[in-house]
Amino acid sequence: MSSPNIRVTTGPFPASKKVHVASNRDATIRVPHRDISVHPSANEPPVRVYDTSGPYSDPEVTIDIEAGLGRWRSAWVDGRGDVETYAARPVSAADNGFADGERLARAFPLQNAPRRGKAGKAVTQLAYARAGIVTKEMEYIAVRENQGRERKLLEMKAKGESFGAAIPEYVTPEFVRDEVARGRAIIPCNINHPELEPMIIGRNFLVKVNANIGNSAVASSVDEEVEKMVWAIRWGADTVMDLSTGRNIHNIREWIIRNAPVPIGTVPIYQALEKVSGVAEDLTWEIYRDTLIEQCEQGVDYFTIHAGVRLPYIPLTAERVTGIVSRGGAIMAKWCLAHHEENFLYTHFEEICELLKAYDVSFSLGDGLRPGSIADANDRAQFAELETLGELTKIAWKHDVQTMIEGPGHVPMHLIKENMDKQLRECGEAPFYTLGPLTTDIAPGYDHITSGIGAAMIGWYGCAMLCYVTPKEHLGLPDRNDVKTGVITYKIAAHAADLAKGHPAARTRDDALSRARFEFRWEDQFNLALDPETARDFHDQTLPKEAQKLAHFCSMCGPKFCSMNLSQEVRAMAKDGMQERSAAFKKGGSAIYTPPVDPAE
Amino acid sequence: MSSPNIRVTTGPFPASKKVHVASNRDATIRVPHRDISVHPSANEPPVRVYDTSGPYSDPEVTIDIEAGLGRWRSAWVDGRGDVETYAARPVSAADNGFADGERLARAFPLQNAPRRGKAGKAVTQLAYARAGIVTKEMEYIAVRENQGRERKLLEMKAKGESFGAAIPEYVTPEFVRDEVARGRAIIPCNINHPELEPMIIGRNFLVKVNANIGNSAVASSVDEEVEKMVWAIRWGADTVMDLSTGRNIHNIREWIIRNAPVPIGTVPIYQALEKVSGVAEDLTWEIYRDTLIEQCEQGVDYFTIHAGVRLPYIPLTAERVTGIVSRGGAIMAKWCLAHHEENFLYTHFEEICELLKAYDVSFSLGDGLRPGSIADANDRAQFAELETLGELTKIAWKHDVQTMIEGPGHVPMHLIKENMDKQLRECGEAPFYTLGPLTTDIAPGYDHITSGIGAAMIGWYGCAMLCYVTPKEHLGLPDRNDVKTGVITYKIAAHAADLAKGHPAARTRDDALSRARFEFRWEDQFNLALDPETARDFHDQTLPKEAQKLAHFCSMCGPKFCSMNLSQEVRAMAKDGMQERSAAFKKGGSAIYTPPVDPAE
Repeated sequence: MSSPNIRVTTGPFPASKKVHVASNRDATIRVPHRDISVHPSANEPPVRVYDTSGPYSDPEVTIDIEAGLGRWRSAWVDGRGDVETYAARPVSAADNGFADGERLARAFPLQNAPRRGKAGKAVTQLAYARAGIVTKEMEYIAVRENQGRERKLLEMKAKGESFGAAIPEYVTPEFVRDEVARGRAIIPCNINHPELEPMIIGRNFLVKVNANIGNSAVASSVDEEVEKMVWAIRWGADTVMDLSTGRNIHNIREWIIRNAPVPIGTVPIYQALEKVSGVAEDLTWEIYRDTLIEQCEQGVDYFTIHAGVRLPYIPLTAERVTGIVSRGGAIMAKWCLAHHEENFLYTHFEEICELLKAYDVSFSLGDGLRPGSIADANDRAQFAELETLGELTKIAWKHDVQTMIEGPGHVPMHLIKENMDKQLRECGEAPFYTLGPLTTDIAPGYDHITSGIGAAMIGWYGCAMLCYVTPKEHLGLPDRNDVKTGVITYKIAAHAADLAKGHPAARTRDDALSRARFEFRWEDQFNLALDPETARDFHDQTLPKEAQKLAHFCSMCGPKFCSMNLSQEVRAMAKDGMQERSAAFKKGGSAIYTPPVDPAE
Repeated sequence: MSSPNIRVTTGPFPASKKVHVASNRDATIRVPHRDISVHPSANEPPVRVYDTSGPYSDPEVTIDIEAGLGRWRSAWVDGRGDVETYAARPVSAADNGFADGERLARAFPLQNAPRRGKAGKAVTQLAYARAGIVTKEMEYIAVRENQGRERKLLEMKAKGESFGAAIPEYVTPEFVRDEVARGRAIIPCNINHPELEPMIIGRNFLVKVNANIGNSAVASSVDEEVEKMVWAIRWGADTVMDLSTGRNIHNIREWIIRNAPVPIGTVPIYQALEKVSGVAEDLTWEIYRDTLIEQCEQGVDYFTIHAGVRLPYIPLTAERVTGIVSRGGAIMAKWCLAHHEENFLYTHFEEICELLKAYDVSFSLGDGLRPGSIADANDRAQFAELETLGELTKIAWKHDVQTMIEGPGHVPMHLIKENMDKQLRECGEAPFYTLGPLTTDIAPGYDHITSGIGAAMIGWYGCAMLCYVTPKEHLGLPDRNDVKTGVITYKIAAHAADLAKGHPAARTRDDALSRARFEFRWEDQFNLALDPETARDFHDQTLPKEAQKLAHFCSMCGPKFCSMNLSQEVRAMAKDGMQERSAAFKKGGSAIYTPPVDPAE
């Protein structure tokens, strides 16, 4: 049941069941998966898939947006004995962009005292990993990443090209710990976001997808944004960034985080800019720092911080076709030029580290100078910043702060791998998190596709998380349909990358769906699809009758030309020995054809 | 004006003008292009783009579907003095699948006597090229492929990775001749299709896109198919395959070809199978040969022929997850097994060559054993057939018949390049023409995207033409919207490949659009897009007012967070010397922000 005020999409996927897989070391760790069952004629077990959708797809759970999700991870956080609660920083009018009266969005009804690490303590997964501690979060992730691989139901014969990644046959909690300790993976999990179902971002794990939501000064509301978050994770978003830039940023974010089972990322400079009424040069370190604390207390799991936009790099963008296209990058560039001073995010970087380590907020080091057009790809401005991000990564690691690196942008195919290789080299294999990249500029309205191509490729080359691009990119704020299209497109890219890398469990779903296709199990084909609704709808546009879901053809080819149908017969003939079959077949007539369906009927 | 009976989409694109560029050697050769003009403030010439849309987008031309397009290329064909006209083979009831009465589609009103090469003459572009003759078609193509490059309006600084392709800075007629003579490119142009605007398929030219249309036994009609053809070329299809499989195949095809300015391909076995009422084992060489003659006379430009599905390869498919997924492949496999005989297309291959060379129909050697799932990619069945296609290519070339090779299918990213490399090696660099490939099986309803990823990659690696896949793939017959989505997706893939290969003129449109984006020339951004209608519509969904087309932001970020806007200011500051600007900027206030637009307004 959803709240009377805010409606979100709930309920299971067709033929799917939420199953909780217990860790075999600690039965209290129960990791949700989705089991998609197939027709009994297939004689196959359900296909177990990674599930980002949280309790919203579990009919056993009552959803109450006004109450938020269960804060079940609090016990893990408190159990480590290194955090304390304290009185939260008071919410000010500036936090909501000075919205008042009817314009002020309602505050989330409940308040919890925030937690922080006790004085001097780094309460990060990185600190624990380095200390040799396997956290509950790591155990949870090990179960989650295996996707039921331990069941060994299907022969794993994946051989991929992983470009130097080290993907294990089976994920153990120790492997998770080791990857986090090396900085090759991060577990974004603010201690103030106990509603979170932990997940990991790193190139030796499944490739992840981020969806951006958030209002802008000209469109959208709280209700819409909460539903967009629920909707995005329903279709497979592994993390969600709240990029709100209008009024009510604080209150919208609170509603989102309290109801989010996935990590939430933000770009704090957006809110800081609202606090100074949009005047970039009025930004100060103090206002920014206060914004970080505000968001650390709310439970934001990772921050995009454009600390690599250094003053000397800005002139490198002057001759570009599209200058600086990162909002945060442009804001910081403007600040730097107005003051003729070095970026305060760079000069105060160690103080930022001190803050983040007390809450376990991860860095997502922003690529403020990413290229915004094919013409600007891989230029000096972009790579100068990337080198600085490498330098900052090492500082963050010194402070035990988990770190990933953001990447472009607009890059033609032949320049994509150079980005990946340079990022791995400069940033010590810290996870890469890219926006696309878009492989051409000429298709506004279709940039989910121009970028889905680049995303699949860079995911294959080693990118750990792909930030989605919707069809509305460059044109307007995405609506619910755009969010879905963006997420599905990026799930395709991420999965294509997992297949190409040779991920041991990735092909299970492809093979199950292909068998269903070959055997005309139409319902199974729909149910195993990333988007069962659309698959079914497309089929039914021409053949809506239930009986046609048993047919050995679809409207694409019709009964006589269905290759799957012909091929089943061929297979039987080939297997039984060709000569005998040849004689028998001629005698038996052509019973393999189901009667043609007349379009007039 | 379109016919009262059959309506097709006509008219120019926004801000676009059809221009005919004359060859500088022969002013009678006039090649249509589309010039997209931009706002005067840009101070830029129009962007000249390749134009597949034919006379339908030319307001100067009166379209009459009942009369067909002008047969202007007849003079070129006749001028070579090596063809003769003769009485056409009579149309039989079998040619239209025994449709009669109301079910028989109306025949095209006009009839022309077919042409063929005089006895023993090879009237193919390959034969001419080898004889050192630069044909009118080659001159036409040289102009067309340059896309106005000779104007040298913009600095060409493309550097790509072409994997051994030899893309010239400038395309000359001699270069075209040379590539055709080597078999590295084909010009599909049946002498009985004089309505054709010649085009070329080869990896040293622009990457091309094919759209499939055609009815099936359960859906669609003549009118719809003609409009689908016009619609597909409007959005950029370079060739169209008529894959009709129901009744009325002959009559539908005639309407299509007589109105098609692009090459038309078919799979003749589909029609042959209709002639034997769908019973594969009743197919004979005689029926097939008669079908080839029928289609040669009508003007089909290339034939998909599954001559590589050899009897011994069929058992190799028995253990596959999805068996044989090519319709033609499955039909031939069934025939082979039923008779326990070698494929008659293979045993009669030289006779087929004799026929094709008399009409200049090109081979598109079908990949009947292509993989239909990720599990089956690059297996022995697939590659055994490809090796045979290499053998057949050499036989076709011996007969001066132009030849391209069809390719998969379903292939994970890491196995795509192996396909391309093997094809080039086995088939002597004959052009490759692939369906996708789809990079995962799990997204029915989105297979334009799963395959667009693979198409972009294989296009980059050297594939010459990409056969589109629509969102309805595996689910149903594509409608008009699906055709558009499929074509646009594949134009993206082809263009991304051109960029990555370092095609000298490819970036012109990207750069023009990106400049428009940076300068907030919204109308230019829409007009330069592959799909201006969708780009405009998406923008206007949130900001519909005309005045908002002048705004320095869109609804995605709103005015304060528009990075393009911020970046323009940053550029000005950076260029003018930072210190001076710093002082001046502080004095001048923050005038760069346009007033915020309130969503309530």
